[in-house]
Amino acid sequence: MNNRRRQSAANFESRVREIGMEIFEHAEDARPQVWQKAWWLDRVMGLLDRDERLRTRAFQFVDCLPTLSSNAAIACHLAEYFDPERYSLPRAVHALFGTGWLRRWREDVVGRTARFGARQMAGRFITGYDMPSSIQMIERLRSQGMAFTLDVLGESTTSRQRAEVYAGIYMELVDRLTRMAREWPVIRLIDEERIGPMPRVQISVKLTGMDPHFDAIDPERSIHNVADRLRPLLRRARDRGAYVTIDMESSKHRELTFELFGRLMMEPEFREWDHIAIVVQAYLQEAENDLHRLLEWRGKRGSRFGIRLVKGAYWDAEMAAAVRQYAKPLVWTEKRQSDACFERMTRTLLENADLVRPAFASHNVRSLAVAIAWAERLGVPRNAYEVQMLYGMGDPLKAAMVRMGQCLRVYCPYGDLMPGMGYLIRRLLENSSNEGFLKQSFGLRASHDRLLADPAVVKPASAASPARFYQNSDAEEPMGEFKNAGNTSFTSAENRKKMLGAIQYVHGERGRTYPLIVNGQSVSTKSWFESVNPSDPEEVIGQVAQARVVDVDAAVTAARAAYLPWRMTRAIDRAQLLRKVADRLEMRRFELAATMILEVGKPWREADADVTEAVDHWRYYAEQIERIESRPRLRNLPGEDNMLTYSPKGVCAVISPYAFPLAILSGMTSAALAAGNTVVMKPARHAGVTAAKLVEILHDVGMPAGTVNFIPGPGATVVQYLIEHGDVNILAFTGSHEVGAGVIRAGAIVRPGQAFIKKMIVEMGGQNAIIIDDDADLNGAVQAVIESAFAFAGQKCSSCSRLIVLDEVYEAMETRLKEAVECVPIGPADQPSTLVGPLIDEEARRRVQDYVEVGRETSTVLVEARLPAECEKGYFVPPIVFGDVRPDARIAQEEVFGPVLSMIRAADFDEALDIANNTRYALTGGLFSRSPAHIDRAKREFAVGNLYVNRKITGSQVDAQPFGGFRLSGTGVKAGSPDYLLHFMDARCITENTLRSGLVPREEKSTVS
Amino acid sequence: MNNRRRQSAANFESRVREIGMEIFEHAEDARPQVWQKAWWLDRVMGLLDRDERLRTRAFQFVDCLPTLSSNAAIACHLAEYFDPERYSLPRAVHALFGTGWLRRWREDVVGRTARFGARQMAGRFITGYDMPSSIQMIERLRSQGMAFTLDVLGESTTSRQRAEVYAGIYMELVDRLTRMAREWPVIRLIDEERIGPMPRVQISVKLTGMDPHFDAIDPERSIHNVADRLRPLLRRARDRGAYVTIDMESSKHRELTFELFGRLMMEPEFREWDHIAIVVQAYLQEAENDLHRLLEWRGKRGSRFGIRLVKGAYWDAEMAAAVRQYAKPLVWTEKRQSDACFERMTRTLLENADLVRPAFASHNVRSLAVAIAWAERLGVPRNAYEVQMLYGMGDPLKAAMVRMGQCLRVYCPYGDLMPGMGYLIRRLLENSSNEGFLKQSFGLRASHDRLLADPAVVKPASAASPARFYQNSDAEEPMGEFKNAGNTSFTSAENRKKMLGAIQYVHGERGRTYPLIVNGQSVSTKSWFESVNPSDPEEVIGQVAQARVVDVDAAVTAARAAYLPWRMTRAIDRAQLLRKVADRLEMRRFELAATMILEVGKPWREADADVTEAVDHWRYYAEQIERIESRPRLRNLPGEDNMLTYSPKGVCAVISPYAFPLAILSGMTSAALAAGNTVVMKPARHAGVTAAKLVEILHDVGMPAGTVNFIPGPGATVVQYLIEHGDVNILAFTGSHEVGAGVIRAGAIVRPGQAFIKKMIVEMGGQNAIIIDDDADLNGAVQAVIESAFAFAGQKCSSCSRLIVLDEVYEAMETRLKEAVECVPIGPADQPSTLVGPLIDEEARRRVQDYVEVGRETSTVLVEARLPAECEKGYFVPPIVFGDVRPDARIAQEEVFGPVLSMIRAADFDEALDIANNTRYALTGGLFSRSPAHIDRAKREFAVGNLYVNRKITGSQVDAQPFGGFRLSGTGVKAGSPDYLLHFMDARCITENTLRSGLVPREEKSTVS
Repeated sequence: MNNRRRQSAANFESRVREIGMEIFEHAEDARPQVWQKAWWLDRVMGLLDRDERLRTRAFQFVDCLPTLSSNAAIACHLAEYFDPERYSLPRAVHALFGTGWLRRWREDVVGRTARFGARQMAGRFITGYDMPSSIQMIERLRSQGMAFTLDVLGESTTSRQRAEVYAGIYMELVDRLTRMAREWPVIRLIDEERIGPMPRVQISVKLTGMDPHFDAIDPERSIHNVADRLRPLLRRARDRGAYVTIDMESSKHRELTFELFGRLMMEPEFREWDHIAIVVQAYLQEAENDLHRLLEWRGKRGSRFGIRLVKGAYWDAEMAAAVRQYAKPLVWTEKRQSDACFERMTRTLLENADLVRPAFASHNVRSLAVAIAWAERLGVPRNAYEVQMLYGMGDPLKAAMVRMGQCLRVYCPYGDLMPGMGYLIRRLLENSSNEGFLKQSFGLRASHDRLLADPAVVKPASAASPARFYQNSDAEEPMGEFKNAGNTSFTSAENRKKMLGAIQYVHGERGRTYPLIVNGQSVSTKSWFESVNPSDPEEVIGQVAQARVVDVDAAVTAARAAYLPWRMTRAIDRAQLLRKVADRLEMRRFELAATMILEVGKPWREADADVTEAVDHWRYYAEQIERIESRPRLRNLPGEDNMLTYSPKGVCAVISPYAFPLAILSGMTSAALAAGNTVVMKPARHAGVTAAKLVEILHDVGMPAGTVNFIPGPGATVVQYLIEHGDVNILAFTGSHEVGAGVIRAGAIVRPGQAFIKKMIVEMGGQNAIIIDDDADLNGAVQAVIESAFAFAGQKCSSCSRLIVLDEVYEAMETRLKEAVECVPIGPADQPSTLVGPLIDEEARRRVQDYVEVGRETSTVLVEARLPAECEKGYFVPPIVFGDVRPDARIAQEEVFGPVLSMIRAADFDEALDIANNTRYALTGGLFSRSPAHIDRAKREFAVGNLYVNRKITGSQVDAQPFGGFRLSGTGVKAGSPDYLLHFMDARCITENTLRSGLVPREEKSTVS
Repeated sequence: MNNRRRQSAANFESRVREIGMEIFEHAEDARPQVWQKAWWLDRVMGLLDRDERLRTRAFQFVDCLPTLSSNAAIACHLAEYFDPERYSLPRAVHALFGTGWLRRWREDVVGRTARFGARQMAGRFITGYDMPSSIQMIERLRSQGMAFTLDVLGESTTSRQRAEVYAGIYMELVDRLTRMAREWPVIRLIDEERIGPMPRVQISVKLTGMDPHFDAIDPERSIHNVADRLRPLLRRARDRGAYVTIDMESSKHRELTFELFGRLMMEPEFREWDHIAIVVQAYLQEAENDLHRLLEWRGKRGSRFGIRLVKGAYWDAEMAAAVRQYAKPLVWTEKRQSDACFERMTRTLLENADLVRPAFASHNVRSLAVAIAWAERLGVPRNAYEVQMLYGMGDPLKAAMVRMGQCLRVYCPYGDLMPGMGYLIRRLLENSSNEGFLKQSFGLRASHDRLLADPAVVKPASAASPARFYQNSDAEEPMGEFKNAGNTSFTSAENRKKMLGAIQYVHGERGRTYPLIVNGQSVSTKSWFESVNPSDPEEVIGQVAQARVVDVDAAVTAARAAYLPWRMTRAIDRAQLLRKVADRLEMRRFELAATMILEVGKPWREADADVTEAVDHWRYYAEQIERIESRPRLRNLPGEDNMLTYSPKGVCAVISPYAFPLAILSGMTSAALAAGNTVVMKPARHAGVTAAKLVEILHDVGMPAGTVNFIPGPGATVVQYLIEHGDVNILAFTGSHEVGAGVIRAGAIVRPGQAFIKKMIVEMGGQNAIIIDDDADLNGAVQAVIESAFAFAGQKCSSCSRLIVLDEVYEAMETRLKEAVECVPIGPADQPSTLVGPLIDEEARRRVQDYVEVGRETSTVLVEARLPAECEKGYFVPPIVFGDVRPDARIAQEEVFGPVLSMIRAADFDEALDIANNTRYALTGGLFSRSPAHIDRAKREFAVGNLYVNRKITGSQVDAQPFGGFRLSGTGVKAGSPDYLLHFMDARCITENTLRSGLVPREEKSTVS
């Protein structure tokens, strides 16, 4: 930097400080006083800030409050959330209300107080519950010299009906407000811009509210649907003279939002319209690129539009998602980075203020001062840009802006508390977060100097790094090194292209043959099985050789011969080979996913997740065997060393299902191999091609011949023969309860010459329930139920078949579910947006249809989806929901393994749990509830192997969610758990007397190497 | 302390310092010079001192060296012990020999060098391998003005023959030395004492060398046997004019040694004899009491004898034993405490020097100076006491003593290296230990002041506290709170009395009846089983009611009804009840042990250990369930909490064997209860009374009715009915392979209406082997084999049935084993010294006798013990060893469950392992070896659930040695392990989405309470 530029920078900084100080002065004058409501709300916020736990609890309580219909319910929840015996509340709370207040107060007092408090809080941030009150509020803002943009609360809609209601409210608002606006006196500062009048009525629209499937995986379809619903609204706004800003939401919708905005606004009818704006989020590391692309596009389009610069409101969730996927976060990890980015973009925007209209949305005095300073320096007049702030936040700052003659627009949420609770919580978070500027400037009275410092040069005090999320609390073992592989992000166009290419590639492989592999040699038998595409059975994906008994024998013999060398291979070397398999799986992940899409009809995301889980298994057991070998349990006493160690068992037969053709096959195989056993692999009949590709990879990485032998074939003979084989030590089976029980029964017989008890690792079916409590977030619940019950056409052992709904919310749930099922995406699996694909074969379709018939006879159909035309060829069954099903009905007791859901009514939570537990299975289960007491009870009493609270019940992750059930669902083995490998091994305790001639060794013992 | 006394104490201390300084000066003059061999040996010791691991390795190598018969074997062991890749040696070693010396040197050079080095070392501490060289050494000592006492190396003899050889050598030595002594010139300082001439020939005798069963549990018998063998030697010594000191060994022999000394020396023929001495160990906390009792006894006896005051040479082992039993150590835990005690006792001894002749055995200059100073002050002439030092240690000090005109006696070990290796190691330890005075005074050149400081006021530098033993190295989990209960010490006369009383009490209970207990109610059936004493079947111990099918049904129903309340009882409350059971078991431990002694014929120690193990199980699972409940595995991610937790399964049938009537029954029952299951208990037919007493205790502590139901009865009906019962969730069985396989087969069938897969926790038999390597410590091996094969007449699943001996040591082992078996204590179980009691019943006796017949037909009898007369009434079978048994012989393949041992010859270690592994069982196994490579291989390849190296293969301890086998020995469940409880439970993974409206909670999650 040369001298002049340095001088200039210094001048600029001092000007920023001047402006900032001016803002502070004006704001100080406008601070709420003790007799104002706002002062009291600030005090409450201050209380929450002192205690993280209390804050979380308070927000969670507020989050569920709108669903509580009675004073008793409110009192009860309040007690659960703030039970002083469970959560030590700060002393201030007790000082305020007196000790024991929770128990002492009458229910109705508690209920009314809580509701009053929440309404006060909500009222601060939400303009109104209805149009009259909202319009009144808007008019009051205008009387204070402030403009507005109206936002109808509601996002992530679950049905087309709801999307239409959402769009309809906007239409009506535009109509009514533009009509009223005619009466409003012109305020030059806010109603005129450089090139002419500025629309007085402005709205901000969220695209996820416009369609239940606004999903990047299928951009054309999403854009088509949303654009169709958006166009009438845009036309209305344009015709009535309103201004529309398209809001930006979480990053997974970002590209799609830009794309849709770009396309729509190039359409002839909108291309000239300049009262339209889009949002750029400075907390994204890509934000500046986004802005540059927008400015480029401005050139193509040729007409003006607005750009609102914000920092971004989803930091917590974006960060959490990144940490959970071990991915690089898309957002800046430190607040100051977002601030600095915001400032750089401010300059760019103002430099282009003749092409676009910039709006700076921030409550940060420094950010605002920088914007004003750049405008001054660049000669941008005050009517060429605006400042935006949120309704209810930073009111003193707003007053300061007005006093300083800045154009200020207030973002005004409108609507019910219920759908707006997400918005409210984000605002509360922002208001009380230690990172938030508002908090710092007023709450903490940090020195103005520090608050106005340049974020580009400031060192962070305590950075919000992802590390703070890794709190493993009091777990017994330290968090391992293991990291789950990430799923493919289909927001990326490149990935979508790769997947489409891979599907083409697999289509091209049709007719390939897949022989048996025994002792490393290909064996072609005379019998071949045609593996077809269940979405279009005329397409043969591959020909798979079918093993005869003699082949099974040869495979077991080969596995037995390969056993000793494999057992003697060092654990770290075995682990290294396993990791290579994982690497190859990742290299070929699109091809493998495409194979599953075409061979078993898995939808894109499910097939992709299947590969991810497979990769996880190979890596996880590699890590586990290294841990087991290198860190045996020691109990060394003086003169006596004790070690608990594990040895492999021998030959393991792996018998796997089509439901997870790669993941479950990989899980059982990799565990067996990691432990030092050799494998005879019998894949599912309909997933032979997928399995053959795994075997191919095993060969490619150099797995020794005979270590894994591949013998697809008819279950009746191959499986039976394997079970009874006297030289098979482990039977690892995943499949139906009927076959599984047979495996256990036959495997338990010690046959002549068999010198061991067979180990049976048997995972079977489920009849899985989700309970919907009366305080549940129904929006989230419906989405989760749809995915749990119908994804992959319900062909997972973990799928939901029963929906147990508390009486109080039964009808509400019914309505929402009905609407959601009506628009669930059904189609061939290779269509990217498909959620519900075909069943595996004709037999499965017939079996499920029989269950549907049984359901029709004994229950009423709540909703049955319609099959689109493209489903005619495949083995499709449309999703169906039966209502008011009796708990003991066959469809609520037997495993259907199809897209059939039984909705069951429960009088109360006790009954709901009873119904849920009253089957012969115990695999997965779910609960949607916001009652801490009910959640605790479910954790104790819901008899399932995997319980999921407030999320879908499928999609367990290796290590985080060890998977497996009990009762008739399995032998209680948890796949993907630190203990899984131990089932494939024999425990050995080794005791060495180390006392020799009275000498107690002092050296540390080395372990068996 | 008044002034005069303080003055006097100060004077005394300054005199001690004067004398000490004088000793140091004389010693300094006599230090070895670089041209002397001793100087080089000091250097080697110094090298070892720098590295604990190297020191341990060096001692272990020296320990096994005498058994290595070839240069190749020596080279091989040297490489194994000092492999530079496995153990990083100090640089000095490589500097001395050059890097890679181990690989470079030729085998014969290595072998010869090692042997030379060891002989040099041994030669320093051992007077001679034969009489001529030994006598020559003694004469050299006398020529330097030093007296001697001769000690024949050898302790803990395993047979009467060996005891007789040991006594014989002493007899011959006394003969020859006294004959030679006539020629020796008189040295007044050492050959005369105050009251007359002092015998020139002195010997020191260890009583454990005199009898294989010198055991405090049966003091009369032990004293009788040892006295019989000692009297001829004493008479010979008395007649020939030699002086005899009875050595003191480990503390478990202490009381017995005093007792025997006291009785013998009161016998008329020895009462007047004053050339006899005994030893007092100052490192014992009881040492001063011991001395006072001896002085009291001196009064009764009326004639003089000698008392040798030592510090004690078994500190390591005494301390280790105390730590392992969580007991208060009998020795002082700090060196300075022993030193101070030694000084106090020195004064006492010198105050009584007219009654006894004191000998002060020490290499501590301070201790010696104190003795000399007290003698001066008390006016004890120099010929009234003596100083003793060990041959080969502290030679400069010895020289100093002689120069100062003190009477010095050197303790001279005589004999082969082999039996003397224990002695040698103790000396090496003493010489190189950081605690040892010799090391400090010369090796470290610590300042004389510090060395002469009063130990009573010195603060310890780094105390040798028991804590240093608790090194749990890199174990995954921290050492738990669990402490094994201690066994009863039968060195205590009080405990012996209690056990005798308890046996009388149980005799008195005969005829008692024991009803079923169902749902807390007594149920008497018409059918009763007479439980008899197998040592004397005419005695009926109790009448036990026999359940019918209807009773079993009622029991399961009661257990089912009790299940829910018990499951809902908090884990800590369940644990508290379990701990109460343990406390009651301990309170009634003598009665319970006595019950087992009489009901199943368990010898004293075994019955006592059975109670201990039972106590451990109740406490251990109480602790485990608390751990499982309070510390679930957490894998919390941002926005998602994951917890792995466990729930009980339901009703558990416990079916237990007679082998461990209380311990195994307790293990399965306590685990089931801890986990939250309820129990239906079917005890072994012959152990009903013992089981009934446990049930009585369960009732007494307030176990809720129905939680444990007691249904003894005929196995054929009760067990079968339980296995097939559709309401029994867990089958916990311990017993024979035949019954166990049936349990598994029948239990695996899912019966109509049964909504779960039964969990089968099945422990079965074994055919357990001990391998004797060619470098094994045969003495230790023989003792361990005898205990493993014949204790409780071999009726443990862990008992040894095969002894696989390497060709090279086969004959040696045969000889020792034969001698040892001939004198193994057989008798009724209530006789305290009994090791081999009766079999459980006539049927068992017949079955074992059949096996003996089979053995006789196919193999040769090496040795068969003879049954004493008192065994006529019971179900006794004498221990028998077959020699050169073929590995595939029936007696080497089938489970005999009796005192039958097959000795098998193996050409080499490979073959030995092959033979060991070549059965259908895999329960316990043992190895005696001092080859690190072979020990490592066995740890990897010896296919057993519990492998024991260099110790007996029975007697696993809860927690330290999780117990259980695989193949046909069991289902791989490890009892007494941290994982055992998990088999009685269902694993449940609970996933909670904690993200609500975008809020990631920062609070730490509390667990399910």
